[in-house]
This record gives sequence, structure tokens and C-alpha cells, in this order.
Amino acid sequence: MATKAEITAFFEKEIPHFNCIIEEVGNHSALTRHLVGERELRFGGTVSGPTLMAAADVSLYVAIIGEIGLVTQTATTSLNINFLRKPAGDKDIICKCKLIKVGRTLIVGEVSLYSEGDDREVAHAVGTYAVFQ
Amino acid sequence: MATKAEITAFFEKEIPHFNCIIEEVGNHSALTRHLVGERELRFGGTVSGPTLMAAADVSLYVAIIGEIGLVTQTATTSLNINFLRKPAGDKDIICKCKLIKVGRTLIVGEVSLYSEGDDREVAHAVGTYAVFQ
Amino acid sequence: MATKAEITAFFEKEIPHFNCIIEEVGNHSALTRHLVGERELRFGGTVSGPTLMAAADVSLYVAIIGEIGLVTQTATTSLNINFLRKPAGDKDIICKCKLIKVGRTLIVGEVSLYSEGDDREVAHAVGTYAVFQ
Amino acid sequence: MATKAEITAFFEKEIPHFNCIIEEVGNHSALTRHLVGERELRFGGTVSGPTLMAAADVSLYVAIIGEIGLVTQTATTSLNINFLRKPAGDKDIICKCKLIKVGRTLIVGEVSLYSEGDDREVAHAVGTYAVFQ
Repeated sequence: MATKAEITAFFEKEIPHFNCIIEEVGNHSALTRHLVGERELRFGGTVSGPTLMAAADVSLYVAIIGEIGLVTQTATTSLNINFLRKPAGDKDIICKCKLIKVGRTLIVGEVSLYSEGDDREVAHAVGTYAVFQ
Repeated sequence: MATKAEITAFFEKEIPHFNCIIEEVGNHSALTRHLVGERELRFGGTVSGPTLMAAADVSLYVAIIGEIGLVTQTATTSLNINFLRKPAGDKDIICKCKLIKVGRTLIVGEVSLYSEGDDREVAHAVGTYAVFQ
Repeated sequence: MATKAEITAFFEKEIPHFNCIIEEVGNHSALTRHLVGERELRFGGTVSGPTLMAAADVSLYVAIIGEIGLVTQTATTSLNINFLRKPAGDKDIICKCKLIKVGRTLIVGEVSLYSEGDDREVAHAVGTYAVFQ
Repeated sequence: MATKAEITAFFEKEIPHFNCIIEEVGNHSALTRHLVGERELRFGGTVSGPTLMAAADVSLYVAIIGEIGLVTQTATTSLNINFLRKPAGDKDIICKCKLIKVGRTLIVGEVSLYSEGDDREVAHAVGTYAVFQ
């Protein structure tokens, strides 16, 4: 298991363009905030689909290393996302991730995505991750 | 909107082989029970994948007609399911369905599937339905 | 690897209600026919969604055991299906399956589903299978 | 319908950070190239998952506007992606997109993703798009 501070330090070191803040992690879950700026928008002024997909993927990854630690290797094997509502272009994206299976070789989690301050989901994702022992 | 009694009567009339009991419906959700007999098993004595997929599809359909009524036409456009644990071969399947978007032309819902009496999900599904006005 | 005759014999022995004919198998692919009768229809006279999901799952399973043989254990871990057109209620369903990854622990395949005699896909599925060594 | 030149001009105008080259478009399909630089990599030196998801989404969008033109509005409603092999970190990503349903309100397409010069898929995606008349 890895703590919020350890995971934050890891991301800052490994991913220079990283724009995610880990709010909470642990207990098979994660709460993450994804900063929205010019690069994250698409025409129409809403947050782009790829930004939402990246946020969901990162949130799942945070929940997973919160569970299995930073040592073991893991890789996304699939991601399914449904886009439900247009996110606000001037709000951060908040991801609530819950792991629904933590197996020896396979981890599955779901993520509800929100525009900050609005409790209606803007997207919902389910991802699967392979764990390499 | 359609009530539990109306939906049950509809299924009994329209689908002779139907083996689902509607426990609760309404408020953007459904709780359904899917009877498990010989036909629902696969070798190894566990409930077959197609049985779980059918249960998820029916549970979503129940939640949807609980919301939009029996008159309007709807059709499944996609279903994504992750199989998480082996269901018990001698327990019914319980589906908890929650609609996460009820749009004018598109409805999206998720379903958690359980073996009765065990609170660990055996599968998790997300389905999308087109509504024809 | 298992031949068409071996897989057919296996299904006949293990799955009494089985209604699939293996037309071709091998070379990372399968061509399967799924018989459509009363039980496979839904109201409106079209083939039901669960029937299509079951057909896709079986077709993937046939392609997989054609590749890795009948000994090794495998289980579906996820299935994603998109329903594209209404299948004819009086035609069998034809599945063309192609494996797109055959790994040591994970196999991924896609399936195009047709009503016999019509070359427009009625559904398209992608499934992942765990292989237990 | 929109031509390759029209779509390219549209992307250059609307999306400043756009790093995709449209090689071919038309006939219900698209062939797109996605430039891989520092920003597109993850630790381990391979192309990141979000980069592949974004590439698939863009390739589908190109195929769709090649079919229905730049006027009509469309939005991604779901995307399912399976990651099959590690892409090379020093090769562009090539997407081959094929639309499998072009309906009045719903379009479905699939995308095979490759590292340039290697004919084994690195990922496979299926996306659905709502069309607003």
C-alpha cells in the first residue's frame, strides 16, 4: 500500500505535465481532482472527451497503487466510458473511484466523474488493470 | 411511469420463459431477482456468463420502463459487462440497477450483480438504451 | 489446439441445450452459427439481445479453445457489445470471430454478428478472457 | 460530407494543440496518424493509454465528419478500448477507423491502432456518437 504523500511524490517525479491532485486514497477507493485549463477544453468550451478519459484512467491508477503499492507493475487492459452530460469548462473534474475487484492478476474499478460543485455525473468509466507479479 | 405490478403483468404476458421477479422499481432504480436453475448453469456448476448478461439487460429494462412507462419504445444499444467472481450455482442472481442518465433519446444505467446472500459483486454492467419518441 | 470435431463433441457432451454449429475454427478465428427459434426471440419478433450476447460469447470461446486447446481453463472477464440493426427473427445468427491478442494470461477477440444471408452487421462485440495456467 | 482538406483546415483552426494528420477519409472510414513526442509517453517509455484513447476518439470523429459533414453536431457518447500490446515510444500511432453503423441519430465505429511500421494492433476501440439533427 502507498499513502497519499508517497503517490503524490511519485507522480510529481515521474510525470512532469501531471495536473491531478490526490484528495483521498485508501480503502479500495480514490478521490482525485483534475485541473481544467485551455488544453483540456474542446470547441464549444466544454471539457474534452480525452481529458475525461485520462482523468478516469489516472484516478483508477491512484486507487490501485493505494492498494497494492508502488513496487508492483500494473497496466491498463481496458477502459469503458460513457459520457453523460457536458462538463462545465470552468470547473475542475472530480473523480470518485471505487475498486470492485482486487484480484491477484486483475483489478477492476469504476469511476464517477463530476464537474466540481455539481453532483450529477458527467461521465462514468469502468477500467480493468493487469497486475504483473 | 409504470408500477411494479404493471411491469410484472407485462413480462408475464409478453415473455413466456421469463424467470425474473421484480422486487422493487422506481426512483431511477430497480431491484430484480433472476431464478437460477439447470439451464442457467455452465460446466463447473457456476452461473453462465450469458445468464448474467441477460439478467443485467432485463434489470436495466425494468428500471427504464419504471421511469418512462410501457408505451414508449426503447432498445438496448450497448452493454458492457465485467465478470468479477464466480456466482454460486445454487443461489438466485440479484441485480441492483441505477439509471445514471435519463435523457430524451438516450438512457444509461449501471447494474451490480450478486449471488443472493453475498454482498460481493459477481459482475458489474453498464448499458445504454435508445428511446424512440 | 482443438479441432472442429473435438470442440463440437465437447459442447454436445457438456452443454445439453447448446444450439450452436461450428462451421470453421482455427487460425485465430471462428465461424459459428446460432440457431434461432421461439426462445431466442423477443417481442417484436426480432432476436433478443441476450441471444446475441450469448452467441458472441460462445463464438469467442470456440475461437479460443481452437487456439489453446480444451485442457487449459479460461473464463470470460469482460464483454462489450454494440447492437447495430434489428436481426431478422427467422434467420440464424452467424458469428465471425477474430482473436486480436493471444497472450499467456489474457486473450482478446472481436465478433461481428449477422443475420444469415445479410452482410450488414447486426451487432459487434469485443470480449476478454483470462487463461489460467 | 467533408473532404480531407476541409477537415484538416477545420482542425487546424479549432484545435491549436492538434497533432493528428489525416491520411485518408471517406467511404465510411478514416486513416489517421497521431504524432508521438515527449508529452505522449508514460514512464517506461511507451505511449500512454490516454494518448491512445485520444487518438481513437479523434480518428472516429474524422471518419464521422467525413460522412456527415462539418455542419451537423455530434458528440461521443461512449468509448470502449482494449490495450493489446505496448506501443513503441519512438513511432507515431496509426489509426484505421471503420464506421459499422451510420444511423440517423447514432453512429458506431471501430478503430484498430498500430505503432507505425508494425502490423500488430496495439489497441482496439469501439466508439458510439450521438448525432443532433
